[in-house]
Amino acid sequence: MQIPQSESPLQRVESRMRQLVGAGQGQAGDIAAEHLGAGGGRVRAKLALAASQALGLPQDAAVAVAAACELLHNASLVHDDLQDRDALRRGRMAVWQEHGDAAAICVGDLLLSAAYASLAACGYATPALLLRVHERVGAVIRGQSSDLSLRGRSDTSLARYEEVAAGKSGPLLSLPVELALLLADEGDHLTSAVVAGERFAVGYQMTDDLDDVQRDALNEELNVVAVLAARGERAPLQVARELALGHFREARIAALTLPRGAGQLLADYARQRSDALQLLREPA
Amino acid sequence: MQIPQSESPLQRVESRMRQLVGAGQGQAGDIAAEHLGAGGGRVRAKLALAASQALGLPQDAAVAVAAACELLHNASLVHDDLQDRDALRRGRMAVWQEHGDAAAICVGDLLLSAAYASLAACGYATPALLLRVHERVGAVIRGQSSDLSLRGRSDTSLARYEEVAAGKSGPLLSLPVELALLLADEGDHLTSAVVAGERFAVGYQMTDDLDDVQRDALNEELNVVAVLAARGERAPLQVARELALGHFREARIAALTLPRGAGQLLADYARQRSDALQLLREPA
Repeated sequence: MQIPQSESPLQRVESRMRQLVGAGQGQAGDIAAEHLGAGGGRVRAKLALAASQALGLPQDAAVAVAAACELLHNASLVHDDLQDRDALRRGRMAVWQEHGDAAAICVGDLLLSAAYASLAACGYATPALLLRVHERVGAVIRGQSSDLSLRGRSDTSLARYEEVAAGKSGPLLSLPVELALLLADEGDHLTSAVVAGERFAVGYQMTDDLDDVQRDALNEELNVVAVLAARGERAPLQVARELALGHFREARIAALTLPRGAGQLLADYARQRSDALQLLREPA
Repeated sequence: MQIPQSESPLQRVESRMRQLVGAGQGQAGDIAAEHLGAGGGRVRAKLALAASQALGLPQDAAVAVAAACELLHNASLVHDDLQDRDALRRGRMAVWQEHGDAAAICVGDLLLSAAYASLAACGYATPALLLRVHERVGAVIRGQSSDLSLRGRSDTSLARYEEVAAGKSGPLLSLPVELALLLADEGDHLTSAVVAGERFAVGYQMTDDLDDVQRDALNEELNVVAVLAARGERAPLQVARELALGHFREARIAALTLPRGAGQLLADYARQRSDALQLLREPA
């Protein structure tokens, strides 16, 4: 397919994802394309494109890495929604809810496979990227498994809660930056990217929990407010908010230590989240 | 980990698979290792090793490709058993039956991811292998989706039955040989490998169906005997047997056209299956 010159990098990511899932070539590919078409902030694609541009990488590699990370994220959403029996995603029915459990398993598998295929455009660096992606996918799977096993347990420690939140979402938030660093031969900085992703993930999860205190209690899902209340905090909402702000701050600091501004967008996202949470704290 | 010199290539494949799924690093990795440890014929690993040896490839690449194909196969087993609600696998409880649906989804994802990671050892050829693997994984997913959508429908044509059987199992049977051909710069012969895998898969599925006529009828699963009976065949068992023999013969012919004996083991497997079926046909 000829790609018009005027396409933006983000549009190229969209085209690449549709092509890799095989839209128009059978049910699973069509459902995958439909799921991708339902929107989403494309946070991971944007992080990859911004880091790649900051590090001076060729656009083809940047698009490949961005599509890979976004496909991985969407694979995890499709399978997580099924595991968690979350019926809605992006204001529509989740894939399992609309097309059935078996279709959701197939679609998630296809998205995961497509993510790896996207890395083929990274030439000689492909093997190193493959290993990194697998390591991080393994971490996400361990995080999701731990989360599932802690359902309905109110005796979870704060440390364990943070470990699970960091493990579930952190790896795919830092991976876009990690892969750009590897491509730019800046692999020494991977740890800072990992820390930034994990802190962001924990801050984000706590913010999310603050919105879902009632619902999570009903569904016996892990929630930081319940964790804090169970250890005797008298103002668990306030403490959770302060903790989240601290995590966003640490995420920003770690992201800003990355070379050549590779973590600038991640730092900006952390600041936006932090500002929104500050506004909530201020009296009207 | 130091690998002892005395380890056979097949033992190296086992070690590599265990290492890539992260045995000992969490629940999903442990279950994946347990599933792999339950046995299985390692047909796809053996096909990869034999084709690689025939084509003079380095052992490291052969082991990487063999582990990738075997991991893909096992990923598909774990997810298929869940989709089909098959309770037993290799004489043990299937993963979903023993550990639950959510764990089975995680374990299948981990095995799929590990398969791609295994290809990192293939150096400059890695990008081409990635694309090929994704194409074939897509074909398997389309085959599995079609199979699921045809459940309980007795009006399936023989052509459609064969298409589904070829699509579901053919790609992962030929993939070991296909990847070895790509590594040996013999990509012109991929089509013969694909045909051999598909014919073998259809013959194998028909043989399997002959053993499961009653059970499949109860479970409303697609079975060639029912397909033949529905179109008015008076001796559907005999016809199915003849068709299966024809498919094994075609598989053998296609495999034997591959360069430098790369398809010899696949041809041998087809002959073994064919001989076993012939014996069944002969009067005692």
